[in-house]
Amino acid sequence: MYKGAAMKLDPVLSISHTPIRVRFCETDLMGIVHHANYLAYFEEGRVDWLRKRDLTYADWAHRGVHLPVVEAHTRYRSPLTFDDVVEIETRLSELRSHSMRYEYRAMKGGVLLAEASTRLACVDPKHQLQKIPADLVKQLVRGETAPVKKV
Amino acid sequence: MYKGAAMKLDPVLSISHTPIRVRFCETDLMGIVHHANYLAYFEEGRVDWLRKRDLTYADWAHRGVHLPVVEAHTRYRSPLTFDDVVEIETRLSELRSHSMRYEYRAMKGGVLLAEASTRLACVDPKHQLQKIPADLVKQLVRGETAPVKKV
Amino acid sequence: MYKGAAMKLDPVLSISHTPIRVRFCETDLMGIVHHANYLAYFEEGRVDWLRKRDLTYADWAHRGVHLPVVEAHTRYRSPLTFDDVVEIETRLSELRSHSMRYEYRAMKGGVLLAEASTRLACVDPKHQLQKIPADLVKQLVRGETAPVKKV
Amino acid sequence: MYKGAAMKLDPVLSISHTPIRVRFCETDLMGIVHHANYLAYFEEGRVDWLRKRDLTYADWAHRGVHLPVVEAHTRYRSPLTFDDVVEIETRLSELRSHSMRYEYRAMKGGVLLAEASTRLACVDPKHQLQKIPADLVKQLVRGETAPVKKV
Repeated sequence: MYKGAAMKLDPVLSISHTPIRVRFCETDLMGIVHHANYLAYFEEGRVDWLRKRDLTYADWAHRGVHLPVVEAHTRYRSPLTFDDVVEIETRLSELRSHSMRYEYRAMKGGVLLAEASTRLACVDPKHQLQKIPADLVKQLVRGETAPVKKV
Repeated sequence: MYKGAAMKLDPVLSISHTPIRVRFCETDLMGIVHHANYLAYFEEGRVDWLRKRDLTYADWAHRGVHLPVVEAHTRYRSPLTFDDVVEIETRLSELRSHSMRYEYRAMKGGVLLAEASTRLACVDPKHQLQKIPADLVKQLVRGETAPVKKV
Repeated sequence: MYKGAAMKLDPVLSISHTPIRVRFCETDLMGIVHHANYLAYFEEGRVDWLRKRDLTYADWAHRGVHLPVVEAHTRYRSPLTFDDVVEIETRLSELRSHSMRYEYRAMKGGVLLAEASTRLACVDPKHQLQKIPADLVKQLVRGETAPVKKV
Repeated sequence: MYKGAAMKLDPVLSISHTPIRVRFCETDLMGIVHHANYLAYFEEGRVDWLRKRDLTYADWAHRGVHLPVVEAHTRYRSPLTFDDVVEIETRLSELRSHSMRYEYRAMKGGVLLAEASTRLACVDPKHQLQKIPADLVKQLVRGETAPVKKV
């Protein structure tokens, strides 16, 4: 999974931001967002990060390329509550031949609420490690494409 | 979906019971179980109901038979709270050529907390309606098989 | 819960629309959105409906007014898949002294994928039925307020 | 949060095991359990670990003692699929004056599928760090109490 050297990444091109509004059902009886839901937020950030580079899950899956999360690490600093709008900052922080790593920051009003990282392995439909295809690598490092109409 | 007459069902053979303990993450900021989670409980009840008749999702899927929920109706009477053990009573209440209906009661200490029903359509892998295969119908109506070792 | 006659509602003022993008974690092994997640979508629609009338959960809770879902009914017509943007049409369809009913339509590209309704009871912090306060009723029937800056 | 030295813990007394059956709704379109759900499994393991030492969330909350997760780390090795029975091994691995750390192993048929750790801070109802009360510490280190009737 750690095969090959890490590519050099442009820190500016590697970042995207995604606002997410906390749902009622994501809170727990402590009145705050349950910690497991942050992984859903970070995933939404990552999917949006890819979309902003014209990459979709369908593209990858169509070519037999899958990117399961093989490691996740989250530090929770301050709680999120219902109806908060949290901004997820998603950054590709490491790109290797067979895996990639994203880092995330959950911010509200400029305050850091949580930070996290996930490692994704590039596997084929039989869950065997494979190289990330070269053209996909290009799309991963080029930064956001022209902004598209927000839905 | 309502094709064909409903089969006559033996009310005793049609019932199974499944205890479920409420998870922390299933509560919301009102301090009670969020209403959407009941559908997960009823589904767990239904899966257990099938297992107790030697039917597994794998059996059905292997034969290209899928049973998506096409309708769900729940009445919430009294709240469930964290760590409660709720007993789900699952009953096959209607069996037709292309669909089936289950009814559920969520009980705690003999008190009815919620009641529900779901209709499931029998479809093929392309989401087209198909008849429920005859041998599966037999397994659906015969009642629980000998108890198996609890995990 | 059905106390009192239903108020007459203006159908135009009673509707709001909320776009929601399907998350990866909301799909199941059938490749489609799991049926329980629709209740989260409808809740998000309802919360947005209230926000567009300057009503927030915090307002209600602060006054000891809670609105638990006491009944939910969903018909699933066509599946939703990952990354779909579904438009939730939320409509207040019944307003009584102690309860209210919302109806929902989940649409994609003009196609109706699911329709649903939920009944909400107005209760105090001890889960006892209470009248919906008169000024809140006014806010419920007046329609959307001036559009606010989208986050 | 790391205040004070870590207590010496008896490795045998510090472990409990909890079997969990994977729910249909916990899978995703890749056909495997979505990675966020493991945090729910580990939480269920931890709640069960506490229950086996006669400790319940209600006990703690009643005394104004809360234990939010402040850090979580998971390594996913092999996927879990629908209907699998996964055994969660929960171990108290670090006990300090104001925080504790649990480690988890998700096993199936003797095979390690995932391993994880979570750090929990001891806070008061205002989310301020506080010492774990001495009598609760005693209950945390003494091992499982006599087995209770399984529900």
